[in-house]
Amino acid sequence: MTAAAFIPDLAAVRAAAQRLEGVVIRTPLLESAALNTCVGGRVLIKPELLQRTGSFKFRGAYNRLVQLSSAERAAGVVAWSSGNHAQGVAAAASILGIQARIVMPADAPRIKLERTRSYGADVVTYDRFRESREEIGAALAAKTGAIIVPPYDDPHIVAGQGTAGLEIVEDAARLGAMPDAVLVPASGGGFVAGVALAFSTLPQPPSICCVEPEGFDDHRRSLVAGARVANAAGGAPTICDALMAPTPGEITFAVNRRLLAGGLAVGDAEVEAAMRFAFEELKLVVEPGGAVALAALLSGKIDAHGKTIALVLSGGNVDPVFFAKVIAAA
Amino acid sequence: MTAAAFIPDLAAVRAAAQRLEGVVIRTPLLESAALNTCVGGRVLIKPELLQRTGSFKFRGAYNRLVQLSSAERAAGVVAWSSGNHAQGVAAAASILGIQARIVMPADAPRIKLERTRSYGADVVTYDRFRESREEIGAALAAKTGAIIVPPYDDPHIVAGQGTAGLEIVEDAARLGAMPDAVLVPASGGGFVAGVALAFSTLPQPPSICCVEPEGFDDHRRSLVAGARVANAAGGAPTICDALMAPTPGEITFAVNRRLLAGGLAVGDAEVEAAMRFAFEELKLVVEPGGAVALAALLSGKIDAHGKTIALVLSGGNVDPVFFAKVIAAA
Repeated sequence: MTAAAFIPDLAAVRAAAQRLEGVVIRTPLLESAALNTCVGGRVLIKPELLQRTGSFKFRGAYNRLVQLSSAERAAGVVAWSSGNHAQGVAAAASILGIQARIVMPADAPRIKLERTRSYGADVVTYDRFRESREEIGAALAAKTGAIIVPPYDDPHIVAGQGTAGLEIVEDAARLGAMPDAVLVPASGGGFVAGVALAFSTLPQPPSICCVEPEGFDDHRRSLVAGARVANAAGGAPTICDALMAPTPGEITFAVNRRLLAGGLAVGDAEVEAAMRFAFEELKLVVEPGGAVALAALLSGKIDAHGKTIALVLSGGNVDPVFFAKVIAAA
Repeated sequence: MTAAAFIPDLAAVRAAAQRLEGVVIRTPLLESAALNTCVGGRVLIKPELLQRTGSFKFRGAYNRLVQLSSAERAAGVVAWSSGNHAQGVAAAASILGIQARIVMPADAPRIKLERTRSYGADVVTYDRFRESREEIGAALAAKTGAIIVPPYDDPHIVAGQGTAGLEIVEDAARLGAMPDAVLVPASGGGFVAGVALAFSTLPQPPSICCVEPEGFDDHRRSLVAGARVANAAGGAPTICDALMAPTPGEITFAVNRRLLAGGLAVGDAEVEAAMRFAFEELKLVVEPGGAVALAALLSGKIDAHGKTIALVLSGGNVDPVFFAKVIAAA
């Protein structure tokens, strides 16, 4: 945690919402009769795949970049990401007239590499198995004076992601259907931390649960242990390329250990089934990592019977050939 | 036109909106930075694929069925449809506790047959090339006393579909972005007629255009001719299975000849490109017939430069194997 870091709170999320007003897409809260029937409860779906750049990541990136001084903006920004954070930073930088350099794995989904470039960013690829993106990014920043924009362990990023949670609170109140539980995908834990903050001052806050891929359930295990633990190196692979962070962030875990009810983990087959369900019943394109919360619900890892459950579909940037394979496999 | 028929007006659409309140999903009005940039204007997207049953058809069907007397409800309903109307009638009947019998072509997309059955309807299949669905449906109705629910040529159906147009008007007003033009897919013309009615009393109504597949552009040609003309029998095939009505409806054309600016026609390749665009940029699953308005925009059939264009994505009930083929073909 750097000297400038702080633990974000609800006020930070509200301030972020004001900065994002009119820039971010206010994604709707959807409902599906088929899904409600299927789980025997009421499910409120926040489709952040409809957000700018196809994922929630734009929220945090914009909230960070819009607060840079003009001298900082002139020096540009550097980020590393398996994809969605890259696009979020690139798009936010483009809107604000800032040069972005993005360090991405050479084997990231083609669509994520192409789209990051399409926002005008310089993409620097690296070998995920032999090189360190942190070292490459830090060297770039040192050489150019650019500001490093971390994917999650930053209070402004967390606060920005939390604006999606504020929207859920407002829209659920309008529906008269405040959730009993909220399911949010987690990688470094910034999104779920922000959402948890957004719900934190309700008289009766819902249970906030993070959902991760099996083998990458560092949040679930850290919450149980009461301290940050890491995923086993070289463990089982996952199709959820967006959710492979090795350990909870320092800042994000400071929020999450206080506000989260726990974590759930889902397997690849459950994720693919959720992607198919979203295709067939919701008519939404969800990437694997974006579908884990729905996968947890559909596979019965949380009992929704008679309850109201809110869940986030966090992204839709999926390779067309892979998506085609998943939906045609039914 | 039967004795009970009348030409629907804006008041009928408003009355339908009251009947549908709380039953229909109020679909959002979406916007995509990528699409706006692509066409050089502002595009407001009404994703009716998020509607109950995956298309706008539920609106009209419910508005028709909810007005049946209890004696009529007890006798049940009969409908024929290539798919989306079938699902709309089946779902509305299920909600209202009415028995539905649906006549569908045996070669309709598998997903449409299955889903119609899933709403509890009796599906009666027929051979599209050898049998008449009208005769089969009429015989069923005669035998059982059931009410026939036509897919478009009915004032209550038109008024129900128009409720989507009212929502566009309200949401566009909220955005301060009233459209210069509105693009709506057309088969029998009920949806576009309803939407045109919804916009009809604005001080400066937008141009309302219907969009059809090439070879099935009976509305476009009828509007030019000032009288209902039919598509050539045995003409070119189309992938838009939802848009194959042979000629404009009598009631729908009475509305459309007065309120429509004209019609546009798109080819299969343009439709597939629009489906891919919706997948990649909007993260939405659109069926071929549902994508024709977007196809017309993307293929430059309407100049959107500096303008605000509203368009409807009317349905998302597409066979997964076909969808997979389309998106992987890029």
